[in-house]
Amino acid sequence: MEKINVGVIGATGMVGQNYVRLLENHPWFDVAYVAASPKSAGKSYEEAVRGKWQMASDPPKKVRDLIVGDANDINQAVGKCDLIFSALEMEKEKIKQLESEYAKSDLPVFSNASANRNFDNIPMLIPEINSNHIDIIPQQKKANGWSKGFIVVKPNCSLQSYMAPVYALVKAGYEVKRMIITTMQAVSGAGYPGVPSLDMIDNIVPFISGEEEKSEIEPQKIMGKISDEKIVNDTSIKISAHCNRVPVVDGHTACVSLEFGQNKPSLEEIKKIWNEFSSEPQKLNLPFAPKKPIIYREEPNRPQPRKDRDSDKAMTATVGRLRGCKVFDIRFVCLSHNTVRGAAGGGILNAELLKAKGYI
Amino acid sequence: MEKINVGVIGATGMVGQNYVRLLENHPWFDVAYVAASPKSAGKSYEEAVRGKWQMASDPPKKVRDLIVGDANDINQAVGKCDLIFSALEMEKEKIKQLESEYAKSDLPVFSNASANRNFDNIPMLIPEINSNHIDIIPQQKKANGWSKGFIVVKPNCSLQSYMAPVYALVKAGYEVKRMIITTMQAVSGAGYPGVPSLDMIDNIVPFISGEEEKSEIEPQKIMGKISDEKIVNDTSIKISAHCNRVPVVDGHTACVSLEFGQNKPSLEEIKKIWNEFSSEPQKLNLPFAPKKPIIYREEPNRPQPRKDRDSDKAMTATVGRLRGCKVFDIRFVCLSHNTVRGAAGGGILNAELLKAKGYI
Amino acid sequence: MEKINVGVIGATGMVGQNYVRLLENHPWFDVAYVAASPKSAGKSYEEAVRGKWQMASDPPKKVRDLIVGDANDINQAVGKCDLIFSALEMEKEKIKQLESEYAKSDLPVFSNASANRNFDNIPMLIPEINSNHIDIIPQQKKANGWSKGFIVVKPNCSLQSYMAPVYALVKAGYEVKRMIITTMQAVSGAGYPGVPSLDMIDNIVPFISGEEEKSEIEPQKIMGKISDEKIVNDTSIKISAHCNRVPVVDGHTACVSLEFGQNKPSLEEIKKIWNEFSSEPQKLNLPFAPKKPIIYREEPNRPQPRKDRDSDKAMTATVGRLRGCKVFDIRFVCLSHNTVRGAAGGGILNAELLKAKGYI
Amino acid sequence: MEKINVGVIGATGMVGQNYVRLLENHPWFDVAYVAASPKSAGKSYEEAVRGKWQMASDPPKKVRDLIVGDANDINQAVGKCDLIFSALEMEKEKIKQLESEYAKSDLPVFSNASANRNFDNIPMLIPEINSNHIDIIPQQKKANGWSKGFIVVKPNCSLQSYMAPVYALVKAGYEVKRMIITTMQAVSGAGYPGVPSLDMIDNIVPFISGEEEKSEIEPQKIMGKISDEKIVNDTSIKISAHCNRVPVVDGHTACVSLEFGQNKPSLEEIKKIWNEFSSEPQKLNLPFAPKKPIIYREEPNRPQPRKDRDSDKAMTATVGRLRGCKVFDIRFVCLSHNTVRGAAGGGILNAELLKAKGYI
Repeated sequence: MEKINVGVIGATGMVGQNYVRLLENHPWFDVAYVAASPKSAGKSYEEAVRGKWQMASDPPKKVRDLIVGDANDINQAVGKCDLIFSALEMEKEKIKQLESEYAKSDLPVFSNASANRNFDNIPMLIPEINSNHIDIIPQQKKANGWSKGFIVVKPNCSLQSYMAPVYALVKAGYEVKRMIITTMQAVSGAGYPGVPSLDMIDNIVPFISGEEEKSEIEPQKIMGKISDEKIVNDTSIKISAHCNRVPVVDGHTACVSLEFGQNKPSLEEIKKIWNEFSSEPQKLNLPFAPKKPIIYREEPNRPQPRKDRDSDKAMTATVGRLRGCKVFDIRFVCLSHNTVRGAAGGGILNAELLKAKGYI
Repeated sequence: MEKINVGVIGATGMVGQNYVRLLENHPWFDVAYVAASPKSAGKSYEEAVRGKWQMASDPPKKVRDLIVGDANDINQAVGKCDLIFSALEMEKEKIKQLESEYAKSDLPVFSNASANRNFDNIPMLIPEINSNHIDIIPQQKKANGWSKGFIVVKPNCSLQSYMAPVYALVKAGYEVKRMIITTMQAVSGAGYPGVPSLDMIDNIVPFISGEEEKSEIEPQKIMGKISDEKIVNDTSIKISAHCNRVPVVDGHTACVSLEFGQNKPSLEEIKKIWNEFSSEPQKLNLPFAPKKPIIYREEPNRPQPRKDRDSDKAMTATVGRLRGCKVFDIRFVCLSHNTVRGAAGGGILNAELLKAKGYI
Repeated sequence: MEKINVGVIGATGMVGQNYVRLLENHPWFDVAYVAASPKSAGKSYEEAVRGKWQMASDPPKKVRDLIVGDANDINQAVGKCDLIFSALEMEKEKIKQLESEYAKSDLPVFSNASANRNFDNIPMLIPEINSNHIDIIPQQKKANGWSKGFIVVKPNCSLQSYMAPVYALVKAGYEVKRMIITTMQAVSGAGYPGVPSLDMIDNIVPFISGEEEKSEIEPQKIMGKISDEKIVNDTSIKISAHCNRVPVVDGHTACVSLEFGQNKPSLEEIKKIWNEFSSEPQKLNLPFAPKKPIIYREEPNRPQPRKDRDSDKAMTATVGRLRGCKVFDIRFVCLSHNTVRGAAGGGILNAELLKAKGYI
Repeated sequence: MEKINVGVIGATGMVGQNYVRLLENHPWFDVAYVAASPKSAGKSYEEAVRGKWQMASDPPKKVRDLIVGDANDINQAVGKCDLIFSALEMEKEKIKQLESEYAKSDLPVFSNASANRNFDNIPMLIPEINSNHIDIIPQQKKANGWSKGFIVVKPNCSLQSYMAPVYALVKAGYEVKRMIITTMQAVSGAGYPGVPSLDMIDNIVPFISGEEEKSEIEPQKIMGKISDEKIVNDTSIKISAHCNRVPVVDGHTACVSLEFGQNKPSLEEIKKIWNEFSSEPQKLNLPFAPKKPIIYREEPNRPQPRKDRDSDKAMTATVGRLRGCKVFDIRFVCLSHNTVRGAAGGGILNAELLKAKGYI
């Protein structure tokens, strides 16, 4: 199979850097184009990220010498690549507009931004859960008059740890009525320079702007159904989220209390469901799909960010401490890698799914 | 007023060190006796804590030269002091027995240990909430055949941040039915050496042995009533707690979701209740009583451990982020200093209450 | 004694906040004026620091309601205060000019900025070492045509830990020829937001812009002599500094290797010199003077930032680990509080010295 | 090539765990035997490390089910493996004796312990520097009456970052006379539980027991020559070391000031020497040899532990900030991974060297 040329726009920011890092040696995709703000445009990628590069390994050789394009100028991307990973960091309205223009120019867009998440013909994918939402893409194309281009988004990083475990239970036939969630989120989620060190030494910050709202609302779209040519949210699950910033580099942890409907599985049954859970990306054997989307650990003090975030290419959700709850039915702790599974890695998995399904 | 001589047993451990530090210059109490394990007995206190002293200031001059007694030998304390602060760290059964023996020897015991918390004639005090539980002491004395001695305990440090705010609402007439709580607890709670640094650099640990059980059960005794010569737990409040260890030196933070009974106060009313809350220790003007037991902060990102733990002698509960909840009725974040309010400072306040009430 | 009204310019930044905090309840000085950038001017101080306040206690009541002036407009200060603490954070040339204008307007300026440190008629004071440098002030006034105003500066925070210990040895008659120093500096030195948390979790940064140069050059002025109406640097001490940023909130630590001239004291003699060292601020009993400018600790693993930075009002230098050196003569570790002794506290001590000496 | 069976003794400790982790998929070596204290003996390795396993990935499948032997009983190893990696943590005299007994039983021993480092017929290897010291092995065997067994040790982890860069300069013809070094060492060097988190949150500790002595003395043996059937130390280099513990998981950093003899290279020349440095392990293409033993980074703020420790299989030394020195000739900062290059990875490289040279 010949590799597909891909472009990364917003390539010099933290998420963009992660795309560049993760796509090195990707079996299907080749980074052939990078774009950023006009300030970086015209420089080599190496020069553009000098002093800003935050990854533990150096930029891949191939990308280092690419000349950075201007992300605002769609024409610079046309002809150089066949799809776009969008890690744009700018005003929401501007992102919405730019991503549409890329799509209009026959370039499928896989976006990490929140700008386009709320349209009912744009799928917000966690491929393990709602890969079928891609069926809305023909409607999306038609509504916009696009030919080959389209937009697919991924949800906020804060919910990646708990959505697969919760969905697995729903899929197994257990209604989930209510959830109260407290997250302890890593600083990499805020980019660089991001969170000041004075806030993170001998301290935590019990607030992340906009994060609780996304953690509560986005699951309803992900769990939604396509009906009447649009994605209709599932509002039956009520979620309340407390989001905290803690001194951890990578890896968002969530403490979850969950109430089932009438039908309540036993703890052993739940572990079985999680351990056996598999889904479309596993069936399709997508390169970035974890072998097991959910790993349950029996140790009493896991998951922990430093020990569990990198499991299975940093694409899995690790769960532990399943136990009963005096208020709801069950409690557990879960964790996923926020800048891989929750950002660039998740975007890549989305693109792999669309490729495997013949949309690219 | 002449000062009362007090003894600290378990004086060389973390809580014991905090007692010694906090009692320096206390207007009512003078540390006249310190005791620890046989290994330390016979040494000067200075010598006994050498290399183990964890406080930011040096041991007070007066205590430095005291000869450490053997905590197992009650007779060494008799005659040297008029009450005992117990910060014993040993097997539970042994603590239970020793504290009883001190009480039997006419020495009132104010204990930080959990060994004696579950007896229905031993008050577990947060003086802002259940100062009236001291009325059980005559029964306690009678049941044990003690003359001047008695035992008073304080609850676990994890619940100090949320109990006063919750009680204030109950006192104002609002029934609290259910609470789901996630704590993010400081490492000082585990003593020294305590939590390994490999667990607390770029990491959190979502488990603290025994802590969730205490956080769920102890509030029921604190909210209980004296009836039929014993303290009867209030089991009407259902609590579910997730307890996490985070890289913070001092200060336990809790994210709370709370469900009221039928009668539900508005957010503004709740803030008013908290801001105006006052109680017995304030009325008695006890030296260690905070001026305001509850401080509500309007900033969107508070309370934070490093900025709020030391408020009002580190004896207050700081609350913030009060908002509605999609699952229960309200949500908020609260914080208290675990080694002061939650340990030695709380013990001192208990002793002050009993002194002011004529029990000593 | 009636209190002197003082102004703090640059009052909303980190150093300015520390001035405001430390001057609460000062026996000689009253904060009567605060100024900052035009953006803050016109607001109450409380409003101006909202969301930026980094201190552990809230702004003092008295200052909270002061209306912030525009630091660029000298006239706003005139009449409101009798001296100025400058914590300006702006372009160097602009600071130089502004501080001169305040001085010209009869307002003595005590500056934390580096802008005016290199003039040979401006004393750069560590009052324990070179309080006699204030004798240059008449020349400074004359050269500038100033009447009551003048400028006094303090050196960089990185050298506060080692300069007093080194000076004590020189004063005792031991020539110091060469020093190699490695500092491990706290993040508060970089202000807020300052150092990104991604650089300080599981990491250190072996570079602080401009810091090594200051650490090497400024000691030569401090150790200098007044001669021929100017301060003449002492270039006989050669210093080489490595400056590192480490995940510590407050407190700069330095590892020092030192070579004496021909005359070499014993380790015991050195400790005696340090323990007995006293100086002008102690003699004058200045409010912010530490009782002992140098504290030597015998424990093998001290000084440590969290345990030693607050010693003696956070104004002392704590030294430890004095031992021989296979390359030079001696080695030791020393520590001082960078935002108190090394910043606002040092500025206050300077003003106290000038007040006591009749310059104000 | 058939794989060689190897044994890891002390396999349940931190260094032992690293051996097990790093040897997974090794092209030459297969872990066929693990041993630990009698307490672990008889359990499966998985069971023995439960709750103690500190690595980010789980124990390799092959090793998980091995039954742990008793490290004190040499006979349990005989027949199961052809060489021993010793990560013993016990009393020095006991280690010395046990390692000799393994060697006597025809098992070459590659040790991380310091017990056998000071014998003049036991090579202390950094293969990039003194691979020729293995020529002493025949004398070692003869002196002990051993047939196929022998002992090879590796030096302390603190000096791995600076020894290769210094040796490269010496090899290029520049005499190094004196060095003053300050290390900032990661907590993993102290094992688990190791350094308490109360010492590493908002703090550093300027002392590590025994570490300065090793950092000063061991380089003299490594730089030594074989003469008269023994390794004779090179005492011409004088080293003074300050060793500090900092809140970093992995990666020891060192700030180095260095004085040359008469012949002094330019900064550019030094960078060239470092960039071009290659040695025996590179020539032999050993599996664990880094491609470049020294990586020089031009960025002003590198090396940094989190970004540079994993370079080139975590086996390289990363150097940066080369500049002149006002006291000596040059200064620089260097870094290496303490638990890989400085411990298990270094031991594996030693074994690879001996295998390639036909000693096994």
